[in-house]
Amino acid sequence: MKRNSALVIGVGAELGLGAALCRKIAANGYHVYVAGRTQAKLDIVTNGIASGGGSAESFAMDGTSEADIMRLFDRAMSPPDAIDVPSLVIYNVGNNRHVPFRDLTEAQMQDFLRSGPVGGFLVGREAARRLAPLGRGTMIFTGASASLRGKPGFAHFAAAKAGLRMVAQSMAREFGPLGLHVAHVVIDGGIDGERLHVSRPQAAAERGENGLLNVDAIAEAYWQLHLQHPSAWTHEIDLRPFKEPF
Amino acid sequence: MKRNSALVIGVGAELGLGAALCRKIAANGYHVYVAGRTQAKLDIVTNGIASGGGSAESFAMDGTSEADIMRLFDRAMSPPDAIDVPSLVIYNVGNNRHVPFRDLTEAQMQDFLRSGPVGGFLVGREAARRLAPLGRGTMIFTGASASLRGKPGFAHFAAAKAGLRMVAQSMAREFGPLGLHVAHVVIDGGIDGERLHVSRPQAAAERGENGLLNVDAIAEAYWQLHLQHPSAWTHEIDLRPFKEPF
Amino acid sequence: MKRNSALVIGVGAELGLGAALCRKIAANGYHVYVAGRTQAKLDIVTNGIASGGGSAESFAMDGTSEADIMRLFDRAMSPPDAIDVPSLVIYNVGNNRHVPFRDLTEAQMQDFLRSGPVGGFLVGREAARRLAPLGRGTMIFTGASASLRGKPGFAHFAAAKAGLRMVAQSMAREFGPLGLHVAHVVIDGGIDGERLHVSRPQAAAERGENGLLNVDAIAEAYWQLHLQHPSAWTHEIDLRPFKEPF
Amino acid sequence: MKRNSALVIGVGAELGLGAALCRKIAANGYHVYVAGRTQAKLDIVTNGIASGGGSAESFAMDGTSEADIMRLFDRAMSPPDAIDVPSLVIYNVGNNRHVPFRDLTEAQMQDFLRSGPVGGFLVGREAARRLAPLGRGTMIFTGASASLRGKPGFAHFAAAKAGLRMVAQSMAREFGPLGLHVAHVVIDGGIDGERLHVSRPQAAAERGENGLLNVDAIAEAYWQLHLQHPSAWTHEIDLRPFKEPF
Repeated sequence: MKRNSALVIGVGAELGLGAALCRKIAANGYHVYVAGRTQAKLDIVTNGIASGGGSAESFAMDGTSEADIMRLFDRAMSPPDAIDVPSLVIYNVGNNRHVPFRDLTEAQMQDFLRSGPVGGFLVGREAARRLAPLGRGTMIFTGASASLRGKPGFAHFAAAKAGLRMVAQSMAREFGPLGLHVAHVVIDGGIDGERLHVSRPQAAAERGENGLLNVDAIAEAYWQLHLQHPSAWTHEIDLRPFKEPF
Repeated sequence: MKRNSALVIGVGAELGLGAALCRKIAANGYHVYVAGRTQAKLDIVTNGIASGGGSAESFAMDGTSEADIMRLFDRAMSPPDAIDVPSLVIYNVGNNRHVPFRDLTEAQMQDFLRSGPVGGFLVGREAARRLAPLGRGTMIFTGASASLRGKPGFAHFAAAKAGLRMVAQSMAREFGPLGLHVAHVVIDGGIDGERLHVSRPQAAAERGENGLLNVDAIAEAYWQLHLQHPSAWTHEIDLRPFKEPF
Repeated sequence: MKRNSALVIGVGAELGLGAALCRKIAANGYHVYVAGRTQAKLDIVTNGIASGGGSAESFAMDGTSEADIMRLFDRAMSPPDAIDVPSLVIYNVGNNRHVPFRDLTEAQMQDFLRSGPVGGFLVGREAARRLAPLGRGTMIFTGASASLRGKPGFAHFAAAKAGLRMVAQSMAREFGPLGLHVAHVVIDGGIDGERLHVSRPQAAAERGENGLLNVDAIAEAYWQLHLQHPSAWTHEIDLRPFKEPF
Repeated sequence: MKRNSALVIGVGAELGLGAALCRKIAANGYHVYVAGRTQAKLDIVTNGIASGGGSAESFAMDGTSEADIMRLFDRAMSPPDAIDVPSLVIYNVGNNRHVPFRDLTEAQMQDFLRSGPVGGFLVGREAARRLAPLGRGTMIFTGASASLRGKPGFAHFAAAKAGLRMVAQSMAREFGPLGLHVAHVVIDGGIDGERLHVSRPQAAAERGENGLLNVDAIAEAYWQLHLQHPSAWTHEIDLRPFKEPF
């Protein structure tokens, strides 16, 4: 009996969502490919999993680079004997930043689109190429409330997230009937991760308990999507703190 | 330590979604109020749960009658010593039927609205009145793809389901911050229950394995909504068979 | 050459949207059936049109009563020689009021549903029965931002408006291909009519010029929908003051 | 009294939508900057307008190039004495093509995004920079049904169109209150232009009269958006042939 495996692309700081996803999946016995830009950060996550008895490996890469994505899938599709090919792929690349529309540069827009529909498509395409023929697997994309709405100062972010959502939706309609479960998670609210605590500590404190999205609670929702039976698949869920106005 | 409890309103045949919801919740140790129109059908579900070692009671009622709904909540809010007041309420009332628009009668439209926004509001209002002050609880409404789209021959059904969805959404925005988790499930596809097998056996057969929504798989999704942590609540999910075009 | 004709159902005060719709249509040479609850109010609108050289008649009715709706269509489908059968029907019935969810009564919910999907269906059904066989005509429904979103204190209004929207959408999909143009107008913002000035004069004043929806500007949008060529029909438009956040 | 002016970016063949937009606007007395990739095609449109007594000039450019867009706005903001600065800007760049998801290349995805959110943002940003300070003007973006839905074989197109829609929506929320009317047109169906007749003549023929979107009818809808009073602006309309299923 081989160990299941999963790819998580877009892992950063230990307190972030990517890391929490890796821990959740590893805790369920999977071998996890911990993929992200910064080797040192990946190793913290990987070592944490290993020290808890789990199985993981770091994979330093640009999550939006075609060559790097191919390398990662090549690695994961030719695993050691004890490990199975992946049945779960998560695309969690992305960032956010307010930029007044009239100050936004073409380079900034392109950067956001790269993290959104470009990288998401490249990862999704490899998942489709490699997993659809096996007739099974789960591909989950991380979205945001901006996936559904454009707001002042966030045209670039909304364009990227809405574009990514359309990649997910197009994939779901094409590959669902082939057995690949494609899901999109609309995260609506601040994430209680390192990023917010570092960049806006006061905002984080004001939210109070459960006023921010707990990364482990988000990871649980991703995991439940992966466990769904093919007779009742969810394509899209929203997640928000109970206090969050929407 | 008291036993948790739940209300499931809209339970019919043993093979239907209502019954599956009751079994799923009872299997997790809850006492279940099995509420629906036909005593004999309720008793089959209740007896099935009891024979498996679970705890349940039948409650014959019209799930859209204000008086009956008050009676049910009165009963559940004054439970025996060993049972806690309910922390989960499910509104699962409803039916579907194609009627050409020009043949639709006012009585038919009213019937559908009664099962939709009228009954849903009456149950939701009692849940809000009784559970919001406790600062906890889950209220789940059963929707359909018609909650989001109107189609020829289904104006009445779509009006009812879209109206019900707005009740759920209004409740979520008002009572979520008070600790009551309000969720809406968009069931998109045929349910593998008694109704379809009896009314359209050939359609059921043509769908094949996992081409219809398995009621236990749906019930699992409801259960996971109930388990969500307040820092990452879902308001709306869709559920469909992997083969279902959407 | 006969005079065209139109039905406007839901006409109230002279400053309201219903009256503005009647004036706009009459100004384009149509005979207008000015239909609403209060004879005296209808006559002010009808007389105003007549004194400007237009053609109109009052029709006192409950815009949600099947019998009254049948009478109105009977009248309009058997017009005097100089007037053609109607090519435009507008359903503009409705009202709004904030009610805390826990205080909402079943009677209030039923009242709102009557003005929404019940009345809208009854008028729409007659339009479909009488105009679809002619292969032409326009049917427009008045919606609101609540057609798309439920908010605290407006569950009843949102349920009614979302239900009405589904009636419109179901009709559009069924009767559009038969030549009946069915449209739904999402009015998002305060209307600069008598109702707001009387009930909340300060709110009206604070909005300033163009901060409220001008009823003549709304009426122009309805009129343009009616004029659209069948090769490029709109089913849904939103209308809001330029200052309105959305 | 100066002549009004308008920019139409994305003009191709004489039978296409871009050309029809130019003719419609010129017929209403505006000077039109006819902007697109191919000088010869632009000149056919420009000469056609001139020969009908209208005012227009060709502007050969890449509608997604920042430098070209700046040049165009520089030109239009410093018009000859008899011509006013533009009050209407239309972004009509884009194309469509089915590509199986697993065959899609990164270059193809990038091309579509360039025509969608990248070019749309660059044009929109200049419109915002130049027109918002004047407190008036209209900016219209051409969308598609893919702006709202992803389908198999169209992930790239849907990502581009949904991204463009978010640019439009973000702009509307920011610049509407400053007096700039930002609208998005969802064109749902085949356009009766040169492209379809050349690439798929049989499909075009099968649709029959009014089964395809007439470009002049579309142009009329754009024009009506431009004419709307600020007290009742539309942000989004859909346009489809009356026979089109939706």
